Formats: sequence, C-alpha cells, structure tokens
Amino acid sequence: MDAGIQAKKRKRNGYDSVNTSPTHPGYKPDYDDTEGSTSLVFSVKEEVGALAKALKIFEVHGVNLIHLESRPKKSDVHCHEYEFFVAADNLKGGLKEAISDLEKSTKSFQVLSRGLKHEKNEMPWFPRKISDLDRFAHQILSYGSELDSDHPGFTDPVYRARRKEFADIAFNYKHGQPIPRVEYTKQERETWGTIFSELTKLYPTHACHEFNYVFPLLAENCGYSKDNIPQLEDISNFLKDCTGFRLRPVAGLLSSRDFLAGLAFRVFHSTQYIRHHSRPMYTPEPDLCHEILGHVPLFADPAFAQFSQEIGLASLGAPDDYIKKLATCYWFTVEFGLCRQEGKVKAYGAGLLSSFGELQYCLTDKPEKRSFDPEKTGIQEYPITNYQPVYYVADSFISAKEKMAKFASSIPRPFAVRYNPYTQSVEVLENKHQVANLTRSIRGDLGILEDALSKLK
Amino acid sequence: MDAGIQAKKRKRNGYDSVNTSPTHPGYKPDYDDTEGSTSLVFSVKEEVGALAKALKIFEVHGVNLIHLESRPKKSDVHCHEYEFFVAADNLKGGLKEAISDLEKSTKSFQVLSRGLKHEKNEMPWFPRKISDLDRFAHQILSYGSELDSDHPGFTDPVYRARRKEFADIAFNYKHGQPIPRVEYTKQERETWGTIFSELTKLYPTHACHEFNYVFPLLAENCGYSKDNIPQLEDISNFLKDCTGFRLRPVAGLLSSRDFLAGLAFRVFHSTQYIRHHSRPMYTPEPDLCHEILGHVPLFADPAFAQFSQEIGLASLGAPDDYIKKLATCYWFTVEFGLCRQEGKVKAYGAGLLSSFGELQYCLTDKPEKRSFDPEKTGIQEYPITNYQPVYYVADSFISAKEKMAKFASSIPRPFAVRYNPYTQSVEVLENKHQVANLTRSIRGDLGILEDALSKLK
Amino acid sequence: MDAGIQAKKRKRNGYDSVNTSPTHPGYKPDYDDTEGSTSLVFSVKEEVGALAKALKIFEVHGVNLIHLESRPKKSDVHCHEYEFFVAADNLKGGLKEAISDLEKSTKSFQVLSRGLKHEKNEMPWFPRKISDLDRFAHQILSYGSELDSDHPGFTDPVYRARRKEFADIAFNYKHGQPIPRVEYTKQERETWGTIFSELTKLYPTHACHEFNYVFPLLAENCGYSKDNIPQLEDISNFLKDCTGFRLRPVAGLLSSRDFLAGLAFRVFHSTQYIRHHSRPMYTPEPDLCHEILGHVPLFADPAFAQFSQEIGLASLGAPDDYIKKLATCYWFTVEFGLCRQEGKVKAYGAGLLSSFGELQYCLTDKPEKRSFDPEKTGIQEYPITNYQPVYYVADSFISAKEKMAKFASSIPRPFAVRYNPYTQSVEVLENKHQVANLTRSIRGDLGILEDALSKLK
Amino acid sequence: MDAGIQAKKRKRNGYDSVNTSPTHPGYKPDYDDTEGSTSLVFSVKEEVGALAKALKIFEVHGVNLIHLESRPKKSDVHCHEYEFFVAADNLKGGLKEAISDLEKSTKSFQVLSRGLKHEKNEMPWFPRKISDLDRFAHQILSYGSELDSDHPGFTDPVYRARRKEFADIAFNYKHGQPIPRVEYTKQERETWGTIFSELTKLYPTHACHEFNYVFPLLAENCGYSKDNIPQLEDISNFLKDCTGFRLRPVAGLLSSRDFLAGLAFRVFHSTQYIRHHSRPMYTPEPDLCHEILGHVPLFADPAFAQFSQEIGLASLGAPDDYIKKLATCYWFTVEFGLCRQEGKVKAYGAGLLSSFGELQYCLTDKPEKRSFDPEKTGIQEYPITNYQPVYYVADSFISAKEKMAKFASSIPRPFAVRYNPYTQSVEVLENKHQVANLTRSIRGDLGILEDALSKLK
Repeated sequence: MDAGIQAKKRKRNGYDSVNTSPTHPGYKPDYDDTEGSTSLVFSVKEEVGALAKALKIFEVHGVNLIHLESRPKKSDVHCHEYEFFVAADNLKGGLKEAISDLEKSTKSFQVLSRGLKHEKNEMPWFPRKISDLDRFAHQILSYGSELDSDHPGFTDPVYRARRKEFADIAFNYKHGQPIPRVEYTKQERETWGTIFSELTKLYPTHACHEFNYVFPLLAENCGYSKDNIPQLEDISNFLKDCTGFRLRPVAGLLSSRDFLAGLAFRVFHSTQYIRHHSRPMYTPEPDLCHEILGHVPLFADPAFAQFSQEIGLASLGAPDDYIKKLATCYWFTVEFGLCRQEGKVKAYGAGLLSSFGELQYCLTDKPEKRSFDPEKTGIQEYPITNYQPVYYVADSFISAKEKMAKFASSIPRPFAVRYNPYTQSVEVLENKHQVANLTRSIRGDLGILEDALSKLK
Repeated sequence: MDAGIQAKKRKRNGYDSVNTSPTHPGYKPDYDDTEGSTSLVFSVKEEVGALAKALKIFEVHGVNLIHLESRPKKSDVHCHEYEFFVAADNLKGGLKEAISDLEKSTKSFQVLSRGLKHEKNEMPWFPRKISDLDRFAHQILSYGSELDSDHPGFTDPVYRARRKEFADIAFNYKHGQPIPRVEYTKQERETWGTIFSELTKLYPTHACHEFNYVFPLLAENCGYSKDNIPQLEDISNFLKDCTGFRLRPVAGLLSSRDFLAGLAFRVFHSTQYIRHHSRPMYTPEPDLCHEILGHVPLFADPAFAQFSQEIGLASLGAPDDYIKKLATCYWFTVEFGLCRQEGKVKAYGAGLLSSFGELQYCLTDKPEKRSFDPEKTGIQEYPITNYQPVYYVADSFISAKEKMAKFASSIPRPFAVRYNPYTQSVEVLENKHQVANLTRSIRGDLGILEDALSKLK
Repeated sequence: MDAGIQAKKRKRNGYDSVNTSPTHPGYKPDYDDTEGSTSLVFSVKEEVGALAKALKIFEVHGVNLIHLESRPKKSDVHCHEYEFFVAADNLKGGLKEAISDLEKSTKSFQVLSRGLKHEKNEMPWFPRKISDLDRFAHQILSYGSELDSDHPGFTDPVYRARRKEFADIAFNYKHGQPIPRVEYTKQERETWGTIFSELTKLYPTHACHEFNYVFPLLAENCGYSKDNIPQLEDISNFLKDCTGFRLRPVAGLLSSRDFLAGLAFRVFHSTQYIRHHSRPMYTPEPDLCHEILGHVPLFADPAFAQFSQEIGLASLGAPDDYIKKLATCYWFTVEFGLCRQEGKVKAYGAGLLSSFGELQYCLTDKPEKRSFDPEKTGIQEYPITNYQPVYYVADSFISAKEKMAKFASSIPRPFAVRYNPYTQSVEVLENKHQVANLTRSIRGDLGILEDALSKLK
Repeated sequence: MDAGIQAKKRKRNGYDSVNTSPTHPGYKPDYDDTEGSTSLVFSVKEEVGALAKALKIFEVHGVNLIHLESRPKKSDVHCHEYEFFVAADNLKGGLKEAISDLEKSTKSFQVLSRGLKHEKNEMPWFPRKISDLDRFAHQILSYGSELDSDHPGFTDPVYRARRKEFADIAFNYKHGQPIPRVEYTKQERETWGTIFSELTKLYPTHACHEFNYVFPLLAENCGYSKDNIPQLEDISNFLKDCTGFRLRPVAGLLSSRDFLAGLAFRVFHSTQYIRHHSRPMYTPEPDLCHEILGHVPLFADPAFAQFSQEIGLASLGAPDDYIKKLATCYWFTVEFGLCRQEGKVKAYGAGLLSSFGELQYCLTDKPEKRSFDPEKTGIQEYPITNYQPVYYVADSFISAKEKMAKFASSIPRPFAVRYNPYTQSVEVLENKHQVANLTRSIRGDLGILEDALSKLK
C-alpha cells in the first residue's frame, strides 16, 4: 500500500483537488523569524551620492536594516541605475514612512510581500537570486519532526528524535554550503537496501530510457548501491556537473509556490531522512528513497532539467490559480509522468519510480492515458489515497518543455522572465533595453551555431 | 616610474615582443606533481556493463587511477554514451598499453597532453570544467616568493616570508572553497591607502563610465576604502552576483594559455599580496592593488565580462601562434585598453587604471590611438619598460566582443566551443546533434523574446 | 441545400473518407501533352565546358529537349555547381540510355516522375519554381465543362459552352501573364448579386475579425459590390500587395498533391465561372462566388497566408498518406475552419463563408467543436453530402501555423524545404552549406530586429 | 581612354568629390508630370465607414485623386488599421486644407515630399512598393538623348535619334511589363562584338570567381555571344530565377537617392543602348555593354545580391550626407570593387569588368589597395577623369554585406526597414507589434533550421 505517499506529498505541493488554496489552511508556522522583516527591492538613478542618499532615508526613520546589497542595474547604455536589495526590521522605527519616502525618490520600487501573505492584486514575492531560497528554509508548512498520528513512526521516540536531527540540518542550511553528510544507522541502511533491491528489479523494463542511462553513473560516481545510502552532497555535485541542478535539504513541507520557485533556479528541495523501518515499502511522505531513486536520475538529463526549470520559471510571480495549475502539471509529470519511447509507454515520474506497486500498475491497461497538454493537464483533478486513474504521457521531454514554455507565456504577468545562469538570478524583462540585450545574446549564439556548422564534417 | 609593472606583467601573460614563445624560456617548474599523471577523456557507447568494461582495461594493465569521473554524454536521442574523465598515474603499470587498448574499444578518445608540453600538431589540452582550473594552481611559471634581484623587496626577508604565505594560500586553493581571508598588516594597509587615494582622484575624469558606475558599489558592498583592504572572497561574491565572474588566488605567473583559459570560465586569477611598502607607486608585477582597483570594477559589467570570456573561449585548444595573438589582444584591451564615450576617449584597461602616471599619459596626445581590430591588434609589438606608444580604442565592449567572436571563428580549430554556465563547463560542438541542441536552445530564447516583446509597454 | 458544394469540392482535393487514394481512381486524362516528356533535374560540377558536356549526352542519344534551363547552384564557397532543369521528349531517341549516362557523370541527379504516376518508394515530383505550376494546367482530373448528369446546368447548352470558355482561359494560362478579364453576363451578375446580398448580411456576426477587416478593402480596391463581379486579375494584384498570394485560373479539378503544391508558392488555383443561375444558393462545385467571397479575404491576412503556405510546403515530396492528412487538414481549416476570438467562435473557412446555410449552422451548438491539432484533425473522417458534424477550432492563425510547421517536420522526407520568395522557388535544404546560409540569413534578420528594437519609442 | 566612362557615370550617382550635393546643380527637368501631384500615406483606424470618411475629406475640398489604394495594415492582433496610398492633384482644389483636416482625423500621416525637393529635417520620400519605382522613370536628371558636345555621337543625328528611341522605351516603361525587345543594328552588333571579344580574354584571369562561374550560364540561357546582343528581358528573367534581381530600363541619369532606392527592391536601372560605334572601347556614360558585361553576372550571385540590396535598404529615408556616403560605397564596390580570393586580388566592380584598360591596371601594384570598411570607404574622395588611385578590397560578399548592415544601423533614421519579398515592399518597423512579427518569423526560420539539421546526413 505504497500509494499512501501521495496523500502527504500532495501537501508538499500544497494543492488539493477540492480546496483551491495553495497553502495549508489554518496553518500556523512555528518558525517565522522573517515575519518581523520586510523585503524591498528598489533602484535609484546613478549619480554622485545616490547610494548614500537612499540609505539615509532608513536612518532618518530609525529603520534597522537586517540585510543590504546594492548591485549594478544596467538598463541602457546611457541610463544606469543602482539596485538595492534590502531586508528591513519592521518592528522598530518608521518603516511605513521610510517606504513612502523611498517611493517618491526612487526610480522603481517594489515591496516584496511574502508569498504566504500577499494581497489580492499584489504581485507575489519571488526569489530573484539563488540565495533568496534561504528564506524558504524557515517558511515551511510543517516541521519535519511533527508526525501525524497515523504515521508509522508516530509512537517511536527514537525515530522522532532522528527526524528532528534531519530537520535541524535543513533548517540551518544556507545556499553555498556543502550539505552535511549523515551517518545512516544500520536500520536505515536496511530499509534502503530493501527498497533498492525491489525497485531496481523493475527499472530495466518499466523506467524510461533516460533513467536507465543515468542509473549506472549514480552507482559509479555517488555510491548508489544496495548496501550504501548515498550522500546528498555527492549527488548534488554530480547533478551540478550534468545539468547544473542541485539539491537542497528541506526541513518540512513547502508551499507549492515556494517549492516550484526552487525549480526556476534548478534547485530541488530534497528530504534527507529515511522512512520508518517498520514498513519499508510504505511512506506517507517523501523520504530520501523517493528523492534519490525517483527524482535524481532524471535531473541528470538536460532536457528533463530544462522542462523542470520551465515549470519553475512559469511560477514566478504567477497568480494563485496558475500556481495551482502548474503544481498539477508538476504532479502529472515530475511525480507521475509517463512517456512514449520507441512505441512503448515508460515511467519517468518519481512517484512511480519509487513505488513498487504503482510502477507496475501504471503501465497496465487499467489506468487511462492521455497526451500531456499543460492547459488540460493543469486542471485535471486527482484522487489522493489511491493509484492514479489517469496518467499523462509526454512525447519527449523536449516537446513537454516547449509545451510548458508556451503555456507559461499565457500566464498573466506584466513581464517575461529569464534565468541568468551566470549570476544564478532571475532576470525580469520589462524594458526594451533588456530585450535588446537578449536579442544580442541570441545573435551571439547564432554566431556560435554558424561556426559550429562550418566545422561539421 | 610605475611603468615597471608592465615588464613583469608581461611574463604573466607569457608573451614577449621579440620571443614568440608563450612560455617562460628555460623555466623549470619546482612543483610538478601532475607530471606523473596523464589525463584522458574518452567515451563509450551505452550498454550494460560499459562502465565496468572500460575500467577493467586499466586494471589489466596495472594502471593506477588518481581520479575518475563518469558523466552522461547525450549526443543524440537514440545514441547515448558515457564520458570518462580519468587521471592516470603514468609511473606505474602499462599506461601506454592501456591507452592503446582503450583507443580500440572506445567511441571517442583523447589523450590530454598538458599545455606546457603539447607536441606540434597535437591539440593542446584545455580545461573542460571549472574545477579543471585546479590543475593550473601547480603549473605556475614562477612561485610568488621568488623575487628578482631588482625587486624592491628582494633584500627584505619579512616581505619574502609574507609573499610565501600568500603563495601557499593560492597553491593549496581548490575550486569551490572560499578564498581565505587575510589580515593585512598596518604597513600593507598604508601602502594600499596611498595608492587608493592617489588613483581615486583621477578616476572621475580618466576612467570609463562603466568603471565609475561600479566603483561606489565596491565601497558599499566589499569594503573598498582608503583605510581598508577588501577581501578577495567578498569581491568574488559581489562579482558572481553581477556577472558570474569570480576571482581565484594564484601562486605565481601562469602561461598565457592557462591564464586565458581561466577567462573562458569567467575566472580571473588574482594575486592577493600587496607590493613592497618602500615604493608604493611602483610594482614590478601585478599585486592586489592592481587587481582590485584596475581589473575588478570592469568585471562587474556584463558586456565587459562577455568580452573577456570571449578571449578566453577563443584560446581553448588554439595553436600557439593564436595564443600569442589573443594574449596581445588581452594586453591592449583588458590591460591597456581605451574606449570612446560620448566623444571622449577614456581608460578601461587595468594597467592604466592602476598606474597614476600612465593613466594621465594615455589620454594625452602623445601616444598614438588606433581602432581596436583583433586581427591587427593581435600582431602589434610593444615595448616593455615604458609607457605604451600605441593604444587601441574600442567603440564599446559590445562591439569589441563581437569583433573578438568574429576573430575567434577564424582560429583553426576542428570544433566550435560554447560555455555552459549551468554546468560550468565548456561544450565542444562537433556533431550535428549538439548543433541541433543549440538551435533548440536559441529557439527557446526567441520564445522568451517574443513573450517579453508582447509585454513591453 | 448548399451543402452539395462539399460533395464535389471533395473531388478537387481528391480525397474521400472511404477510399484513401488521393487521385480519382480510373481517371483517364483527356489532355496529357506532358505524358510524352520526362523532367530531369541534375547538377554538374563547375568546370570549363561543363555545360556543353552535359548537353552532348542528349545529343549523342538523339534525345530532343523540349525545355532547358541552367542555373547557378552554390552549395559552398569553394564548391560551385550548375543545375539543369530539362524536359526531354521521351518518344524519340534513347532517353533511357541518356539518363543512365547522365547519372554516371553528374553530381546529383533526379528523374522527376509526375505525381500521378510516381512509383512506390520514389520521391514524388514537385514544383521547384513558381512557373513549374504551369504543368498543372494540363494535369486536371476533369475538364471544367464536363458536367455530371445531376448538375443544374447539365441540360443547358449555353451554360456548358460558357463553362468551356472559362476552362479554355485557364488551360492556356501561363505564369506571369495577366489573368484575362471576363465580361460577365447579366444573368451571371444577377446570380452573384443574390449571393452577395445574402452572405454579406451574415458576415458581421458570423465571420472572423480578419475577414471583416479586409472585406471593405475589396470593395474599395477590387470592385466587390452587389452589382459588379470583380475580376480575378484585380483581386490577384490586391492580394500580391497584401501578402504575395496570387490567384491562378484552373480549368478543372486538380489532384490534392498538385492543388496543395500551389499553396507552397502562395498560389491559389481559382475558378472563374459563376454557378448555374437556376439555383443561385447551390453549386455542386467551387465557383467564383465561393473563391472570392469565401477564400480571398483571408488570403489578404499575413498570418493566414503563412498558415496556408505551410500546408503547401509540408506537401512537397510527402508520401501519399501524408498528402491525404494534409488535404484533410486543409479541409478542416481553409475550407471549414472555425476560430476563437474574444471568447466567441467565428467562421474563417471558405466553405462556410460561401454557404448561407452552413455558416449559420456551424456556430450553433449542434455540431461538435474540437481544438485544431494536425495529428488528430488530419485523420478525421467526414461525411460528404451534409453539413459537417465536427468542426476544428483554431486559437489563432499564428498558432495554427506553428502547429502545422511542427506537424510538417514529422513528415518522412529526406530534406527540409524553404520557400525563397525572391526567386519564387522552393529550396531543398540537404547539405550543411545551405543550413549555414539559412543561419546567416537568420542572423541578418536578428540584426534588423536589434536595429528596430533600438528605435522603438 | 576608356576611363572617360567614370566622369559621366559619376553623374548617374549624382555625387561629386568636390560638390556635396547629390543632385545635378542647376538642373531643370524637362519632364515633370509628377510636379503637379502630391503623394500621401496615411492610416485610419478600422471602423465602419472608415474608408469612406477619409475619402470624403478630399471630396469636400475639391481635391482630385490621381491614384488611390487602400491596404490592410495590421499593427496588432487587436488594433487593425487601413493604410491609404494617395496621389492627389495639387493644382486644383484645396489640397492644403484637405491635408490639414486629414492630419487631425488620421492615426498616422505622412506627406511624401519628393526626393528632389525635400526640406531640411523632413524625412525624404522613398518608395514603399516596387511599383513606386515607376515614379523615377520621369524623375531623370537628363534625358538619354541629350548628349554633351564632347560626346562621340554629338554630331551624329542618326545616333541621337536612336538614343531617343531607347529613352522613350524606358520613359514609358511600367513595373510588371516585359522589357521591350530591341532589334540591334549591324553597327551596334559590331561594336558589341569588339568589346565582347576583348573583355572575355581578360575575365578568366582578372575577374572574381563568382563572375566566371556565372558567365557561361549567360551564354547558355540569355544568348550572350560575340555575335548576339542579349535582350534585357531575357537577362532580367534569368536574374529573377537566380536571386530575384531584375532589370528596369532607364531613360537617363537618376539621382543617387533614386538609383540606390531601386537596389532596395533588387531592381537595377539599366541602359539599353549601345555606345557610339566610332570609339568602341570608350563611352562617356554607362551603356548596355557596361551593364550586362560588368554588372549582370554578379547580380546572379546570392551574396552579392544581398550586399547590393543592403546598400539600397540603407539609403531609404537616409539624410543627404549619408546618401553621399552610400553612393561612394557603391562606387568603390559595385562599380570599382576588388576582392580577395584564394590569396589573390580579383575584380568584381562593373566599372572594371567593362573596361579593358582599367581591368588590367587595377590588379597591378600601381594603385593603393585598402580593406573595405563602409565608414572609411564612404568618405573617400576620388578623381573623375582617370583610373582610380585607391581601390577597396572586400574579404567576401558575405562579410561586405555584414559590414554594410552594421553601417546601415548607424544611419540616423527613426525606424528600421525590412524588405518583404512576398509583397515586394519595404516594411518600416516602428512599433513593437512589427518587431514581434519579425521575431516570430525568425522563430519559424529556426524551426526550418532545426528540421534541416535533423535531416543532415
């Protein structure tokens, strides 16, 4: 009965086939040290003393700045600006007044309300830089060590303490740090070994080609084996080499908005603990086995990486109803996706590839199979306590990515976004100079293409 | 007489207006722990046991592998391969025989001879991944603490010991680590303070606009000030946010080939020590003042970053005579470049921006000024103990980058290269599937362009 | 009962929901003056006397050349060839032997079998230049004056003589000539007037926006009015100015392959006669009213023109089963297409816009409406004597064009095709130099884009 | 002394190394039937009765319309306009008042002053459609039969009458008509034969490769031979097939602005008469021998055709000083250009390829040779009664085209232009929807590129 994983994983993505709210209703976060701070992004025209002048405003109003960065912002050859990223303590001093003053004297100005609380008609906050993801670490919907009463480990104090250890690692993790290595217990290794043995029997026949192609590399490079639980850090480094994807430990459930935003940066929020040993083939929530057997192999595939990032980019600043659609697309692809390969249907979704039962079921004739189409897939309802009655089949990750990009352009947002992998930041394209820069960059790429073509044999 | 810096810096780039050899003649490296190893890159077709079979060959011949990575290599939807990066100990076992066996059984195969020793008609080795730059750390042409007899610090044992400290930091540095912070002495801070004060007087009138735009941000974000020597780590992080450029400490002079290869990855090899206090306005070799006052501000500019990387990419696998041309282009741009801005000529080269005397001289009518044109600039000779008699003037960094890209495509190489900033690796484009992937990626970018255009006001 | 038009128009496109043959079975052409000739395209390497040498072969074998053109063919900077277009009389002399000799001595060689007779596994002939369409004029499946026994004009000798006049105009028409103007009779003008009056009542509410936008221009520029039958020549000139589409008179039914090939050149084969006066609201075959009321307005729309051409380009050299799919796509778009505009469904298919009854019916709830998707639409069966039970709805002509292009790339052909509007010819892209030229041309366009962007206000 | 051709040809391009005026000073046209008319282009928003309303204004003011066309103008999916091309008689009625009224009620409005008379700061008129070139037919700076007193045919009344015949053909020619065929006299054929024999001796060694490649095709397809003077119509048709270039007879000298504008449409204004028989190797002005021996072969080369068109497109709406620069570039390329091929310098300029003396001289060491660079070439002065002391050498037509496109983007114009070969019209890109259309078209081309790449062997 491994379908139980879905019921809980649903929560991670924060959607619900009945309730449209992307967040857990009635949720009261235990950790909200960001509640007392407000994030601002604003830019000022380049001129002598421009930086000092902007900061003076906070001083005048007695506002304490928790974090401050200023960066170049070149919108034009002739029109340079400075961009400020500021986190201000909103408990002391006149932040409201400071904001009002700033708004008058700055060129562009945005108060970044947090996702959980953004007002109607207000652009939801989204991370601009990969290190902004650090904020999510404390925005979790439930802490990893809080178990439901029907959780196999509910009455096991040792397991709960162990879970707390993992949650604490993630809670304190900051972008750029190596992911702490964990010494897994014999019990944990046995649980892993059981799962590993069972699933690897099915992979050659049930998993998609890309999965089976990468799998042996994980054994060679990251220590995947029946007897060894691989370390997130090693896997993350391997993925970085393959596609630039990386793992980041997470302390509990994230809202859909936050979880998807991670993908925009090619960051996958991963658990690090092992499910309760009492039921090795069952877990009510995603555990390390699910992540690194189900998800990781595909993230090493360039086309799949692009597809996943595309969902993430589409989510940035999107309205709540579109977040729900995107999370549903995520569900039917990254979690439960099937694909067509050489005339056969194969599994590529992590929920399938980490579930011995559903992996077999999904390729039978029982469930319905439809072509992946974000517009339709995104509004498909689904049951939560059972195997899926409907699966969506992709022609290829390339075509799935193109469809997703097309869908993304239909999302009502006042700007286009582009990921800059050099600066690991999201560029918001909203003026013609940025568009001209992009055009120039495309021209440069075409130059490389020409060069490459001339050298083809 | 601060022109002395050129004489030595020349060596870093390994060129010489008389001697065409890109390396220091008669040089005998003290540190050559890589001498005993041979790097190989090869790929094998995907099939069951493919990984094991390849490794077996080394075992059979008793070859010890120092380092081994296997990665996916997807040349086609239907034709997957595994790529191996191997460093083999060539002192023990039958490496020669193993190579011969491998060549027969692999799909593509390349012995990567090191730059210093590559044979005529052999493709020189070049780094494929950013972490490959670690190899340069020990390939230095002279160790930082070996001073010439006319060096101001030659007879100062304290200074020489200090230099050794810095060289050791760089020698042991590995990609991905934070650059160790250094507590600078009072004497060092005074030397820095003197230089900082003098140069900042000239910047507003003599430096290009991009330089003056970024400079205040360095004060705000990295602690640039008369009284404080900024830390490489802070600067490197700031640059990463701006353009993805990063600094890497270097223990001595690199060959031109190695130094330029760093730029392909947006990595700048930087010294960390301060010149001898006895002559604050003079240094016979690049020191921290030169690097972080002269070079750093421009690396925060996206167009300049692209231009610099373009030189680097052009150098990968280029024949020696082209390395010399590229190093000369580097000399006349990144080190001694001028540019035209709103009808005036301004300085952007680091050699100028860190030299109180030449910065003034270069904008006078005395030296000749010509339009930057890589084909001509690359073969220009130049004196080494004096101010330059000829400078090259760029119209803009954008146009300089385009000219450099055009020049690059004229370099005889059997492939085109493209930097993949996600994986921080260089992609060698040599088959039609890679070209098709690039085409697809360009199409994706055009989709973003379309989206952005539709949202322009 | 105007649905009758479908039954016959079906034949024009040569398909049938039961019989899969794209051509009329058992058909015996009355006019086949091309039967005695064979078309050849071949190229020879540039060298002194190359042209003469190739022609010598025909002479030696006593083959009479009906038509001969030689053109430059630049596949590469360094490798020039001459291309020959030859029509040889195959009744006299040893054509077979000549072909065999040519094949040995030429660089590329293709015998162009005619569409009607191409063998299995042989690439069907297709026009390369717009003037090649002249060949279709005599390849008609039935001559315009042959009426079926249930045709309203079957027993009317005057009408039949009139139809013969129109057929003769088309039969003798050559590309580049003005389309002969016709003096329509009072009876014909009355028939037209009746249809015009009825249909124009429905257009404002039933036709798509593009149609209603262009319609008044046809009145202003081409003389569309209740009392005047416009001339094909005037309409063709107007369309040329708008989108480069042009009309060409046709003497009877063309095979689907030939008819679609015309669209690749933005040429629409149009009838010129008016239906029989006895039943003004009915015609068993396309007449001028159908063409110029139903089809013409949309061909003035750039996006629709691109879409139509895309179908045409897809058809060139496609296997028979794909011709059938494309003809079915044509049926459900250009003839019977609906589209979504501002939340409402509107008609854009000519079969609808020229049928008073079906134009009203199609927007009701009775028929089923599905999203246009070439893969599915192309295999949809349809009844022939009644209103359609299923319509396909396009989101926009732009998206329909993109879908069609995607579908086209799935058609098994050993080359890609591109239309060169300068030379009005189809370019077959099959070597890397052509691909490089295309890349260069795209880069040139991006340069224009950059320029235009920089000038946007 | 065949250099005399330059002195006169100079006038055709209307420049002068001393006098900067692009037009013949003191010139009084004999034929100015367009003087009494004013051209207007304006657009009105789509709405019921929009067309009628606009025309009403002319009627109210009693203005007689000589020519009227209305065309669709789709600037946006949601914002359609109608565009009017109007030629109004300005001798009768209140045109001034009508214009003033129109300006108030229309969306965009432009009075197209004629090139010869445009005011300072007024955008010079330029042709938008290929048929607009008909206007130039009567805008000639001197009629073909007016000979200077030193012209070899000045005192030959038969020759003058013959020249009048040719001028009349051109004067009455309209776009789209076949160019009238001419029966050349025995004397004319002998003159041609002499020139043909002499020049064809030099071509194999002196002309560029592209020229020699095409030349035999002109013999095969257009009847080039010692004994036959080819017909413009046949040559024009051949060129259309090769590159879409076409010839158009011209009755006399055109201004530089008008002559260059023709190239934007790939139209070359060509004379049709033969020089005076008394001096076969000399002509003071371009004659048919110059055109079809010197110019025609290169216009069959795709890259050269693009280059020539690029000059033409750059000239549209350019300020007078840029017209002069472009005409000078034209002089040093299309007329007197050299190029580098396989290490040797060869001639491609028509002035060289039609001059027995200068063709030999130009490849000697006597004249100076510089690299073609539009910025510098465009301001080069040159003598008019002698062989050129300086020639400009192109690396390739492709690179010359790219340089010209780059130069074009530096011309101060408030818009970018793009040629639409389907409609044979110039598109003025000035709003984001046009830019978006162009982007989409580029994306479409990239799709073809992808398809072609996937099919490369």
